[in-house]
Amino acid sequence: MAIARPAEPYPDPSWWGWGDPGQVPVLPEAVRKLLTEGLGVRAGGARPQSLDDVALPDIRLGPAVLDELGAVVGPAQVSTDPESRIRHSAGKSTPDLLRLRAGDAGTAPDAVLTPASHDEVLGVLGICSDRRVAVVPFGGGTSVVGGLAPEGRAFTGVIALDLRRMNAMLELDEVSRVAVLEAGLRAPQAEALLSQRGYTLGHFPQSFEYATIGGFAAARSSGQASAGYGRFDEMVVSLQVATPAGTLALGRAPKSAAGPDLRQLVLGSEGAFGVITSVGVTVRPLPEARRYEGWRLESFAAGIDVLRALAQDGPRPTVLRLSDEVETALNLAAPGELGSGGEGALAIIGYEGTAAEVKERSAAVARVLEAAGAQLDLDAGEAWARERYRGPYLRDALLDAGALAETLETATFWSRLPALYEAVGSALRDALTARGTPPVVLCHVSHVYSAGASLYFTVGAAQADDPLAQWEAGKAAASDAIAASGGSITHHHGVGVDHRPWYVREVGPLAVGALRAVKAELDPAGIMNPGVLIPRE
Amino acid sequence: MAIARPAEPYPDPSWWGWGDPGQVPVLPEAVRKLLTEGLGVRAGGARPQSLDDVALPDIRLGPAVLDELGAVVGPAQVSTDPESRIRHSAGKSTPDLLRLRAGDAGTAPDAVLTPASHDEVLGVLGICSDRRVAVVPFGGGTSVVGGLAPEGRAFTGVIALDLRRMNAMLELDEVSRVAVLEAGLRAPQAEALLSQRGYTLGHFPQSFEYATIGGFAAARSSGQASAGYGRFDEMVVSLQVATPAGTLALGRAPKSAAGPDLRQLVLGSEGAFGVITSVGVTVRPLPEARRYEGWRLESFAAGIDVLRALAQDGPRPTVLRLSDEVETALNLAAPGELGSGGEGALAIIGYEGTAAEVKERSAAVARVLEAAGAQLDLDAGEAWARERYRGPYLRDALLDAGALAETLETATFWSRLPALYEAVGSALRDALTARGTPPVVLCHVSHVYSAGASLYFTVGAAQADDPLAQWEAGKAAASDAIAASGGSITHHHGVGVDHRPWYVREVGPLAVGALRAVKAELDPAGIMNPGVLIPRE
Repeated sequence: MAIARPAEPYPDPSWWGWGDPGQVPVLPEAVRKLLTEGLGVRAGGARPQSLDDVALPDIRLGPAVLDELGAVVGPAQVSTDPESRIRHSAGKSTPDLLRLRAGDAGTAPDAVLTPASHDEVLGVLGICSDRRVAVVPFGGGTSVVGGLAPEGRAFTGVIALDLRRMNAMLELDEVSRVAVLEAGLRAPQAEALLSQRGYTLGHFPQSFEYATIGGFAAARSSGQASAGYGRFDEMVVSLQVATPAGTLALGRAPKSAAGPDLRQLVLGSEGAFGVITSVGVTVRPLPEARRYEGWRLESFAAGIDVLRALAQDGPRPTVLRLSDEVETALNLAAPGELGSGGEGALAIIGYEGTAAEVKERSAAVARVLEAAGAQLDLDAGEAWARERYRGPYLRDALLDAGALAETLETATFWSRLPALYEAVGSALRDALTARGTPPVVLCHVSHVYSAGASLYFTVGAAQADDPLAQWEAGKAAASDAIAASGGSITHHHGVGVDHRPWYVREVGPLAVGALRAVKAELDPAGIMNPGVLIPRE
Repeated sequence: MAIARPAEPYPDPSWWGWGDPGQVPVLPEAVRKLLTEGLGVRAGGARPQSLDDVALPDIRLGPAVLDELGAVVGPAQVSTDPESRIRHSAGKSTPDLLRLRAGDAGTAPDAVLTPASHDEVLGVLGICSDRRVAVVPFGGGTSVVGGLAPEGRAFTGVIALDLRRMNAMLELDEVSRVAVLEAGLRAPQAEALLSQRGYTLGHFPQSFEYATIGGFAAARSSGQASAGYGRFDEMVVSLQVATPAGTLALGRAPKSAAGPDLRQLVLGSEGAFGVITSVGVTVRPLPEARRYEGWRLESFAAGIDVLRALAQDGPRPTVLRLSDEVETALNLAAPGELGSGGEGALAIIGYEGTAAEVKERSAAVARVLEAAGAQLDLDAGEAWARERYRGPYLRDALLDAGALAETLETATFWSRLPALYEAVGSALRDALTARGTPPVVLCHVSHVYSAGASLYFTVGAAQADDPLAQWEAGKAAASDAIAASGGSITHHHGVGVDHRPWYVREVGPLAVGALRAVKAELDPAGIMNPGVLIPRE
């Protein structure tokens, strides 16, 4: 069935941090000084030494169920060793990492299964429904919203369904420019397979190096090049989903009027209805040329006007990002060069396409920027491109140094964006200052639409004695501010468990009832990622 | 609340045909000859003379319920007179018109209500739920798939909820370029209100002259300029829906990762979950320039390759339509000039935007077309623009003349498009020839995506003795061919009652179960458009 598979196995990320431990940067002296003198960071939290120091809950699933599951996926594909369980106990939010660094893997599953096919997934879900075992679909493990630690107490146990063996490109329809990719394929592997045939997906979120195709679909991911290539949910033309009640196969045409678009009901369902096992996505020819520019604008407010003009009237660059004054000064757009920013508000504007398109489009956008008084800074664009996936490693270094560092994001319509920006920034500053740790709050816009845009906040502070409670307070204040300002609780991170109370406020009880009804139909035993996205009754 | 409303009331269309009776064309002698000699059309079916000749079912709803409803909307807004009931008994499919022309209004509602607000709609739905009265949301009445004649027998009666009084522009956010429009606003009225402020919606389906904003949303409409402005479901950023269980208010941002996109669950729900009462849509500046060109290609197959190239690699025109050889010869792109077509396959390619954009884009597209050997035919483009809403009037004239005329449409991925085209054409020709009326089958592509396109078929034949059974046979054969070829049963007409069996095959029983579960949650008494879209159990 598979027409191509990755040649090499994929490396596991560090269990206490983001990814490859060798890539965690050494913080420059200036940044260390900023942390200690500016934020009051005290002695650093050392990295944990050994997996042996991590406390795991007892395994609740007995050998009979594990044997039954092993008969479906193969006995070698059922792991109950501590390392597998710890590696599947959480995602990559700062609270997740703080808990693991403190030796707490209390949310670990009883077992990790690695099925090889849609039918094996169906078989596993059948057994788990019968035996009341909760199931966590697990792709890249990069959730930052508590999407991988469901409420398993009411069940006989919890398994993580790691989809890494389902990593084939099943089909490449070059006439329609559609690739059917299995859910467990990692983004870099997908790009490698596609590029051998001359194509790209064009989906490059910050989680790119570890996240999977299935995860992008389940959580409505949006990449750094969304201005040009669109969001992941806009790329999806078909889906296959294994649910406890059977298979959903959706998408006979790019668009249709045959009822509601049920693909859009599965996209963003975060494993609560079933397991997305493969996804049909539009692909594009590999760009012949790429160009990333920095442009320095007078202020964040002035820059937002320019972004809006480009989003509404064009021309549309492929990448469009604008840092506020604080983020610009700290140079977060290039985390490897932290602290060496500059004045004003830095925009990163990128182009991908044919050489002629890139030339023409960049010239046309430059005219808009120059008319707004912006100044070209080519180095800043190149630095961004070089450093674009480094943000999460910087967080590892900051946590090592004893700082608290986390991000959150929202979106709304353009007319409400300035008020939303002020409200969330103030809420974070007030809440963390009230706990004795005045923070630095940075923000950028990185996804634009004709009607609105996203805001992405980064927060740094000294770690308090209880950093989990500290961040919980800041996060709750920010989420309340988002709700009060009419923003969405998440633009591309998803809901998970962490955003659930604000999600329920956002869509209202009737919508939650409708989702619960869908879940009851597709997952009658309620085993799928319980408590993620949809509150249990 | 309303910031603007149409100044003039909207004219009612003819009850036995499409729209303004004065606009039904006189068929040219050449076309009459083609009908009689080519298709064997016999003596014409005269138009019905009087509403008095139409048979109506008895009114089942008693005065107590009608009074109760009148207390919500006002007694003057509850109509039970024959004309109101006949005008709300059906949509505008050929079977609908054939039945009405034969004096059969058996699907008429008991009463027609004209509420003035979201709250009045909520009030009506509450009473109807309590009293088990079926409710048909009624916008422009232009459904061609049986979306307005639900299965009301199991209920105590049926009311049509005509939204014509809910016709305000509630809000115009010029920063975000979003207008909030009430559901009963007709498309020409919406364009008139927006154009006074310098904007357009850019949604111009063939039903434009009569259809409403709510209908576009409920049925996932797609307009003739979809290549440039997108489908209606892509324009919607927010929705307010009155359901029997309460209000759904969706859309805090253009895009979000806060769970499934529930707007896309309401779009295409065809009144089965509730009544869409207002819609937030993106608007664009009125185009400074418009240009519509005809281009003649060697063949339909060659033209499809050109459309695919433009859809995938750009530049994208605003309007992109390609007739097959038969449709080109008959000149259906300009119904007023029927029969005077020509050789090859005619493409209509339109541009709207700033004068500079139109100039630049048309020149770039011309280079692609010329490289494919296409020849410019400016008159054909202008004729299309002049005649773009005339197709349904032509059908009135054909029905008058004793011909059968109807359209159907589908969509699929590019790689499957040629086989789908052949299969549907063959099925129509075979099925109608087998009934003694060999048809003429015409086709065009009018909506393109990077991954695929729509096919729109027009069928003409002599009317058989039982034209309803005759068309039912042709339609069933075409629908079976669509299902077997992997196409969607509808690209933009919707499901209604007519497409339901094939819709169920398309999405599968599990998806139907999920929709039924949503309906049970939002509409526990099952009163909303029963049997439309979702089969009753």
